Amino acid sequence: MALRARALYDFRAENPGEVSLRESEVLSLCSEQDIEGWLEGLNSRGERGLFPASYVEVLRGEPAGPPPPPPPALGDSRYANLPSGGYEPAQPFQSAAAPQLGLAFQPRAPPGGYPASQPSDDDWDDEWDDSSSTAADEPAAQPGGSYPGGYHDYEGSSRYRVSTRSDMPPGPSSLASSQAAGKGSATVSRNLNRFSAFVKSGGEAFVLGEAAGFVRDGDKLCVVPGAEGPEWQENPYPFRCSIDEPTKQTKFKGMKSYISYRLLPSHTGLQVHRRYKHFDWLYARLLDKFPVVSVPRIPEKQATGRFEEDFISKRKKGLVWWMEHMCSHPVLARCDAFQHFLSCTDEKAWKQGKRKCERDEMVGANFFLTLSLPPGSPVLEPHDVDGRLDGFKVFTKRMDEGVLQLSQTAGEFARKQAAGFKKEYQKVGQAVRGLGQAFEMDHMVFSAGLNRAMAFTGEAYEAIGEMFAEQPRQDLDPIMDLLAVYQGHLANFPDIIHVQRGALTKVRESKKQVEEGKLELQKAGEIQERCNVISYATLAEIHHFHKIRVRDFKSQMQHFLQQQICFFQKVTLKLEEALQKYDAA
Amino acid sequence: MALRARALYDFRAENPGEVSLRESEVLSLCSEQDIEGWLEGLNSRGERGLFPASYVEVLRGEPAGPPPPPPPALGDSRYANLPSGGYEPAQPFQSAAAPQLGLAFQPRAPPGGYPASQPSDDDWDDEWDDSSSTAADEPAAQPGGSYPGGYHDYEGSSRYRVSTRSDMPPGPSSLASSQAAGKGSATVSRNLNRFSAFVKSGGEAFVLGEAAGFVRDGDKLCVVPGAEGPEWQENPYPFRCSIDEPTKQTKFKGMKSYISYRLLPSHTGLQVHRRYKHFDWLYARLLDKFPVVSVPRIPEKQATGRFEEDFISKRKKGLVWWMEHMCSHPVLARCDAFQHFLSCTDEKAWKQGKRKCERDEMVGANFFLTLSLPPGSPVLEPHDVDGRLDGFKVFTKRMDEGVLQLSQTAGEFARKQAAGFKKEYQKVGQAVRGLGQAFEMDHMVFSAGLNRAMAFTGEAYEAIGEMFAEQPRQDLDPIMDLLAVYQGHLANFPDIIHVQRGALTKVRESKKQVEEGKLELQKAGEIQERCNVISYATLAEIHHFHKIRVRDFKSQMQHFLQQQICFFQKVTLKLEEALQKYDAA
Repeated sequence: MALRARALYDFRAENPGEVSLRESEVLSLCSEQDIEGWLEGLNSRGERGLFPASYVEVLRGEPAGPPPPPPPALGDSRYANLPSGGYEPAQPFQSAAAPQLGLAFQPRAPPGGYPASQPSDDDWDDEWDDSSSTAADEPAAQPGGSYPGGYHDYEGSSRYRVSTRSDMPPGPSSLASSQAAGKGSATVSRNLNRFSAFVKSGGEAFVLGEAAGFVRDGDKLCVVPGAEGPEWQENPYPFRCSIDEPTKQTKFKGMKSYISYRLLPSHTGLQVHRRYKHFDWLYARLLDKFPVVSVPRIPEKQATGRFEEDFISKRKKGLVWWMEHMCSHPVLARCDAFQHFLSCTDEKAWKQGKRKCERDEMVGANFFLTLSLPPGSPVLEPHDVDGRLDGFKVFTKRMDEGVLQLSQTAGEFARKQAAGFKKEYQKVGQAVRGLGQAFEMDHMVFSAGLNRAMAFTGEAYEAIGEMFAEQPRQDLDPIMDLLAVYQGHLANFPDIIHVQRGALTKVRESKKQVEEGKLELQKAGEIQERCNVISYATLAEIHHFHKIRVRDFKSQMQHFLQQQICFFQKVTLKLEEALQKYDAA
Repeated sequence: MALRARALYDFRAENPGEVSLRESEVLSLCSEQDIEGWLEGLNSRGERGLFPASYVEVLRGEPAGPPPPPPPALGDSRYANLPSGGYEPAQPFQSAAAPQLGLAFQPRAPPGGYPASQPSDDDWDDEWDDSSSTAADEPAAQPGGSYPGGYHDYEGSSRYRVSTRSDMPPGPSSLASSQAAGKGSATVSRNLNRFSAFVKSGGEAFVLGEAAGFVRDGDKLCVVPGAEGPEWQENPYPFRCSIDEPTKQTKFKGMKSYISYRLLPSHTGLQVHRRYKHFDWLYARLLDKFPVVSVPRIPEKQATGRFEEDFISKRKKGLVWWMEHMCSHPVLARCDAFQHFLSCTDEKAWKQGKRKCERDEMVGANFFLTLSLPPGSPVLEPHDVDGRLDGFKVFTKRMDEGVLQLSQTAGEFARKQAAGFKKEYQKVGQAVRGLGQAFEMDHMVFSAGLNRAMAFTGEAYEAIGEMFAEQPRQDLDPIMDLLAVYQGHLANFPDIIHVQRGALTKVRESKKQVEEGKLELQKAGEIQERCNVISYATLAEIHHFHKIRVRDFKSQMQHFLQQQICFFQKVTLKLEEALQKYDAA
């Protein structure tokens, strides 16, 4: 007889692999053993999947008891919604504690909500590229030829198949060994939670030697030693890309409208026109491809009000930030999909390149194959790497709190300036003007100058009120935009860290197994070497994060202060103008 | 049988001549005829006086009816309390409408409440001058000798007895005629409301020719023609008087404490020490003496907290304003009592001078005798004077509204800066500092500069918050002090205008009586001439008010703007300092 369980509460599946439960329904369990707090089974509708073990009671033939108490507040059906405005770093870091909150299954869940693959955006379904990414009628992309404006020359790049370690000499032998390792890795246990970031990102498969693919020279990514540890090798061909003011376009004789952005990358000098959906498509590709890179978030999707000026301006600012972070990332900037996005001007070539990107093999586990370390790079001590990750975890937690605090404060400050501050200065202006108007009733020749000066002063204060209301656009809004960008990055790192942690765990497991005589020393060594690649990449990514963070916060704080100074100077000027009116009074 | 009435509501006597009533008590009426809304009678406790006619029902033998409806909101026992922060100009101007509100009987009722003659102030009862002002044991003051530091020389001034018109040649004949006019004025009716400002100020007595007294040369006050109408002749010996920071003094071996102000008048160069009670004494003298001069208010009395720093500072500022307005008034500045107050350094001389001032004959009606017009001054058309008074009434009403509005707005603005503005800037500072502190957890060498700069920026914003909170002392407080001074002046003018209106009414009445053959043409002419003196004085006082108003508001608005400019410059400087820190970041 199959093991059965009864659902104690409703549970709504939120991620692939989960299955929804209705309170009281009876389920068949595949095993009574939970996997990090999750059970697998079939629900009453025959759907198979995972659900939280705490949401069911295993039935052992005893009669049904009284109905269970209601679930705790965090465990209700809304549990899977992330808090807006920031992630809760303590939870994603701890995969064992997370299932109750459904967070560990939410890879890179956006705090502001940027779902990357739902086809709900504006005019996503229009003709130009509405075909699905697996369209079978599409011929295989012609490398090189289909990327006329491409960033590097595909024809000239050698392709070779490697696996497991990109700094090992490539060749069939290495491939063979990696495949052997992959096949023979049954001795090192796999993670039971198949939805953990470590597993989903391909980190586990890579560490266990299961990754395999051809790495072109042009795809090779180097991690180099820097003053403060591993760094991504700088992009040898740095470029920027401007995004012009978006324009509203129509097609089908005005039946359909969309917003078009003109992009001008500095390295091609050729402008391209892109829509939000193209950004969205690219974003999805990047998420798939890069397991240990913090892909900057694109601005939120929005169903209504897409043509409202405020929204357009906000989205554009978000895209500019996104572009800035893409271009300045040594790995992301060189990515084929991004280069295709930046340079393709031809509709047919766009489609071909798009399909090619979607069929890219070097994603996830295989992405790690493209990483190479300088010859002789030392194996990083797992203990040291752990320590650095701990430090970074503390840092991100504190930074996230600080960012949230400043973001809320700045938002509140902007609102106060637009409402309270403006009102107060305007009320002063009106009162001064009112008294000046009363003074005009005196019909005394000698008071005319004073009356004029007071009228001017009143207007000056009213203008200052308006200036206070307008000012946040110049200084606080950019700060808040910056903070939102970094909230996105901070929300990315738990998964990146999780991949690294998973790899380090595997190293420790393999060492134990060697001690127990269950694993060959050589295989354990290979696992450690592959883990080392991930460590180098993770630390390089963390280093890159700190580098752009210092750069961005420095320049934005400067911009903020410059704008504030400019503002107070304008206020002073206005008041000086008013003061001068009294000279003649 | 005496006429009787029953009180319909409680009525609390608020002014001399009024009598309190208890609801339902039965009163004896002196007459059934009300005088401008007031009846005279004896209450059940045998007290005689006036009460509002509307508060009683006259009993004519009918049985007592059901209890009356409650009095209207304005007519309850709190009716006599003036609105704080400003007078209601519409009411005091209309003496006929006022009795219901008890306002016409409130001569120069202070809006902030500056009762002038109640001996309730701090240590009023101490030794130095606690004897009553009518002490019989005091020898008659020696003119001249008792004013060692006096302003003008009494010995050298001729004394002569005049009456009715100061521009008529003085002498016994004039006195005789004035006395005759006084005695024979029964033909021109007196005001029935014996508590109207016109009557109480002595305006009526003067117009009817009942004033009589000796006018010294030095007491003569000239009204001169100016560009915009009559003006007070400038004080030929202008002076200022500084008031130093008050100090706390003790006597009786520390048993008694008081605050002493060091005054230094520029025309004597001799410092004197005065206490609040001396200001208060002087203020009462001035109110008695000058019927058509707006005597600046002294700061409010306060029973508790007299030694608290805020109170002392506020009172001092009020006294400085008071002194400034006293010194710049051509009539008040020259007044004996004020000069005695400014110059007397000897305790015995102080007492003598004080008694002399209290026995001053040239107060009220007799004050008008001291006024002189240049020979050949035209008689002002009553119609024109009325028109100018109407204009001034409109002006004061508008100004009072404007002053109240600005005062409330400034107060609210000061509170907002001390609370909301400060809080907002400090919150921004804390948030920036908090993020900077989070950044310090990164242990990256290259971020140390940014972290320091952000810490400095955070502190700068906290400092700016503090600056916002402190700023109102520099700019808004002085404006509010100024407005309070003018609220006092504006509250003085209804009575001044009332005196003028009463005089004009008498002129019209006398003309009518001449037409009816009830009054000699000559007597009517004399009434008109005396009224003319009041008109000149009133217009001169209005002119003086406008002059100091324009001067004061100009200089205070300049001061306010200068302080605001200085403030925003300081803020800018602070921000520039913060910005520089990023250069090295």
